Amino acid sequence: MAYPDEFEGFMIEDQKKWTEFKKKTFKPKEFGDHDVDIKIECCGVCGSDVHTINGGWGDAPLPLCVGHEVVGHAVKVGPAVKSIKVGDRVGVGAQIWACLKCPQCKSDNENYCPHQVDTYGAPYPKDADPNETITQGGYASHIRAHEYFAFPIPDEIPSEAAAPMLCAGLTVWSPLVRAGIGPGKKVAVVGLGGLGHFAVMWANALGAEVTVISHSPRKKDDALKLGAKEFVTNSEKGWADKYAFAFDFVLNTADMTHTFDIAEYLSICKVNASFHQVGLPDEPLPSFKAQAFTTNGSSIGASHIGSRPECLAMLKLAAEKKLFPMVETIPISEAGCAEAVSRVHDNKVRYRFTLTDYDKAFGPRD
Amino acid sequence: MAYPDEFEGFMIEDQKKWTEFKKKTFKPKEFGDHDVDIKIECCGVCGSDVHTINGGWGDAPLPLCVGHEVVGHAVKVGPAVKSIKVGDRVGVGAQIWACLKCPQCKSDNENYCPHQVDTYGAPYPKDADPNETITQGGYASHIRAHEYFAFPIPDEIPSEAAAPMLCAGLTVWSPLVRAGIGPGKKVAVVGLGGLGHFAVMWANALGAEVTVISHSPRKKDDALKLGAKEFVTNSEKGWADKYAFAFDFVLNTADMTHTFDIAEYLSICKVNASFHQVGLPDEPLPSFKAQAFTTNGSSIGASHIGSRPECLAMLKLAAEKKLFPMVETIPISEAGCAEAVSRVHDNKVRYRFTLTDYDKAFGPRD
Repeated sequence: MAYPDEFEGFMIEDQKKWTEFKKKTFKPKEFGDHDVDIKIECCGVCGSDVHTINGGWGDAPLPLCVGHEVVGHAVKVGPAVKSIKVGDRVGVGAQIWACLKCPQCKSDNENYCPHQVDTYGAPYPKDADPNETITQGGYASHIRAHEYFAFPIPDEIPSEAAAPMLCAGLTVWSPLVRAGIGPGKKVAVVGLGGLGHFAVMWANALGAEVTVISHSPRKKDDALKLGAKEFVTNSEKGWADKYAFAFDFVLNTADMTHTFDIAEYLSICKVNASFHQVGLPDEPLPSFKAQAFTTNGSSIGASHIGSRPECLAMLKLAAEKKLFPMVETIPISEAGCAEAVSRVHDNKVRYRFTLTDYDKAFGPRD
Repeated sequence: MAYPDEFEGFMIEDQKKWTEFKKKTFKPKEFGDHDVDIKIECCGVCGSDVHTINGGWGDAPLPLCVGHEVVGHAVKVGPAVKSIKVGDRVGVGAQIWACLKCPQCKSDNENYCPHQVDTYGAPYPKDADPNETITQGGYASHIRAHEYFAFPIPDEIPSEAAAPMLCAGLTVWSPLVRAGIGPGKKVAVVGLGGLGHFAVMWANALGAEVTVISHSPRKKDDALKLGAKEFVTNSEKGWADKYAFAFDFVLNTADMTHTFDIAEYLSICKVNASFHQVGLPDEPLPSFKAQAFTTNGSSIGASHIGSRPECLAMLKLAAEKKLFPMVETIPISEAGCAEAVSRVHDNKVRYRFTLTDYDKAFGPRD
């Protein structure tokens, strides 16, 4: 069997051997009226892929094909699909389904739908798929997605640049726009990795004045190149003192928050501003006193990706301003996948990987 | 010496003997052009008074006169005072001075001024008082306050009802209005004590639908009387399940947060809503994972009293709607102060105490 009954992907069979990808076939969910089949052209490599396959986030259903920064072309669309036609270039991010009926979904918060389905490693609910198939991601020949979670990619954006926008890009875009970031606002971006480099680019493009806070002085040049006005190293004690009440929004993109002095990061918030997390460590937050909030009425929170309207707005701005991430491409293969996840794990990437050359791995699939 | 050189107050001399009040004299700050001297009529008894005198919040300068819910009449006003004239009934809350020059002060956030001075137990900065006098509170004959921190009390509000509004009332009013609470909003108030009973009253008066979450089923009647629509007990495991995504604002007025399952309280927030603390325990918050925020993009924060404009708006609404707290009065004396702080410490109050009969203790002071 082959497409459309089965897809092919590079899969992990054992979380202890999380760099041993094997090319295998798997069955997609039953094709629904709103579904789109996408022949994948490329896929970004996300920190989540590593946390999932190596067990950092717990057990995963195996064998598993990860990847949730997927770009390709629609090869089949369901009879009810209105937003996409065969041949369109579309992207899929970290969410592939939601009920679209609950109060969250009806208020453009489908990324907080309690019934949401992750793009890989999650079972469909019975009403979406009678087989309750476990989702499989984009290190694969095809992906089947509900049209609401397939985003048309503007022509101006190359596929390998669009891919990382769909998880990493959207994950930092959504909190920035929900915090009302624009001209006149000062934003601190903590950490300059895959998420952080998007955050600097977006916040700057939205008109804010951006300060990067990082452990690594060697990242200063990249920070300024991406649009930051200022670069602050946070390795010395007391670094935060001169930034008391300085920022309208502090966006933490580092997944090392468990090692932070939370009070320090709260102290650099303006009155009632937020210290917001998108880099989520496996470990709990360090304990701190609620009194740390009361010097400025600040808060700490976190968010989960973003909504479809937010994704479309992000892609539009990226297309208009020709804002593309710094991406290194690796041809997809068992070895290519292994190299990509190993280097993401070891933090040896500036700033995202996109797996490419899918035709070589899976054939033309026409 | 007596007024205006010295004031008299019921003071604590030893934090180990925090119920032993002694009537003593103390020197106020040097009288400034913007200062107002107030002959005190009554003063609320706040949980902060207890935390301060018994050492729960650390060492305090001794001897100390606490009390920061002060109502009285102006008996002397400085030459630059514009908002108050002699004879006016005014109130003083938990803050008695701020620089009124910094960005926080200039944006109606003087309650977050880094130079702010607490109403008792804090030194004035040299530019406000060459003697850098330690402030003394309202268990006293008089108080000297900068006019910005002396609030005219509307005629409709009895003094003993106005007093607890000035700290407890404002402390819950400010976060409610900053969260945009009004018609169509659902507010959960956690804990029904001195702060909580104000929160229910204000949130209801602002037009919101209020749910009280409490350990004590016996508080249900009071909750409903104060305007709550619903009463939920949180002592049973799983109580939060049916309130997932239910509230636009969760206002925690209990100072037992260190015993809470934070994730439970975050889970009852609507998307991007906040779990907000005004009851601050001495102990740190319990550790929790940042992932607890990501089901709904919620946050946790806290605030510190409120601003002058917020206080005036609160008093105006209370006057218009004749909203008065549930207050028990105790005549001020060494024994009266001891009884009040002991019962606040033991949580034996529904819902606030106001110390009264100042003329008996201090004479008419005319």
